[in-house]
Amino acid sequence: MKFYDCTTAPSPRRVRIFLAEKGIEIETVQVDLSTGEHFSEAFKAINPLMEVPLLALDDGTSINQVGAICRYLEEVYPDNPLHGRTPVERAMVDASNHQLQMNGFTAGAEAFRNSTPGFKNRALPGPHNYSQIPELADRGLQRLDNLFADLDAHLANSEFFVGDYYSIADITALCVIDFAKWVKKRIPEDCSNLQRWYDQVNSRSSAKA
Amino acid sequence: MKFYDCTTAPSPRRVRIFLAEKGIEIETVQVDLSTGEHFSEAFKAINPLMEVPLLALDDGTSINQVGAICRYLEEVYPDNPLHGRTPVERAMVDASNHQLQMNGFTAGAEAFRNSTPGFKNRALPGPHNYSQIPELADRGLQRLDNLFADLDAHLANSEFFVGDYYSIADITALCVIDFAKWVKKRIPEDCSNLQRWYDQVNSRSSAKA
Repeated sequence: MKFYDCTTAPSPRRVRIFLAEKGIEIETVQVDLSTGEHFSEAFKAINPLMEVPLLALDDGTSINQVGAICRYLEEVYPDNPLHGRTPVERAMVDASNHQLQMNGFTAGAEAFRNSTPGFKNRALPGPHNYSQIPELADRGLQRLDNLFADLDAHLANSEFFVGDYYSIADITALCVIDFAKWVKKRIPEDCSNLQRWYDQVNSRSSAKA
Repeated sequence: MKFYDCTTAPSPRRVRIFLAEKGIEIETVQVDLSTGEHFSEAFKAINPLMEVPLLALDDGTSINQVGAICRYLEEVYPDNPLHGRTPVERAMVDASNHQLQMNGFTAGAEAFRNSTPGFKNRALPGPHNYSQIPELADRGLQRLDNLFADLDAHLANSEFFVGDYYSIADITALCVIDFAKWVKKRIPEDCSNLQRWYDQVNSRSSAKA
């Protein structure tokens, strides 16, 4: 099994933290997104979507997408589950993680990719080029402001995103909040619940991954 | 268990087809999105996100999000699995389904919600209002064109989205293609693989759900 990673990018970091929490070690290959290595013919042969993270199995199967990779790893390494311990808890984690993906990661990517000169025709990842839309960058920033307030309200009554259970939703949220710094958005001072949660998850050794 | 549905909306249809394929019957409550019933205080008490579908369990737990609902139902009703039959197949289904969600549903929603007068300040679902961005509607249409070509290429060598196995990814794709008609996008004539696949999945009795 080989994990295709890029240490500077927020999406593969979700997998790195997941691996660290589970105590799994996998051979890792760095793909340098800053020099466009993901657009090379060699990497396209491994992943036609030209994205990291990617998990390549020994039989040649490639698994794309953070969510699919982490779920596969949880099946193969079931100890210390991070997707939930019961059907209902798994549903809560899944719904929370999906919300954080859609309202967090997507919002951050809207803000970043639509405003950064280096992403001029790369407003979306993947094989197609799309022009930047400046209004979409603004909307991404608005969405991050709303997200901070929503997450703060949720964490007023909950230690982690799903009760007192640290899960993959907390990993996603940590990466979303650190990614938001790329567009100069930080946890507002009045979001004390979110800050308390952030300090707690950020002090875990996995957060360094 | 109660399923909160809206027969005219594309997201809850994914759950309806899933239920039909699994042969599961659940008490269903219609929420009339056309009159804004999802914004009512009564419905907000059930789902603060003001969205359908929603699955309300008998103990009062609410499960949000199509993906989390279908995965929960698969755990409770494991016969005839639609998320895959092995860890690798489950990873393939999960990655494919996520791609279809991000590049299909999201693209269709960008096109529809940013161009339809009734969605003037509702360019995104959920509790926050966002203005329409006409350029984003155009980008949504471009993305659907690219999607049709990409899906057609994929289905040249595959009966369903994941080999010869009908899965939740096919359900998502069917709903994406029918949703694209809302913005007047139909399978192009030269996409014969995609059309062959569509005719096949659309002829299943579950497609009427």
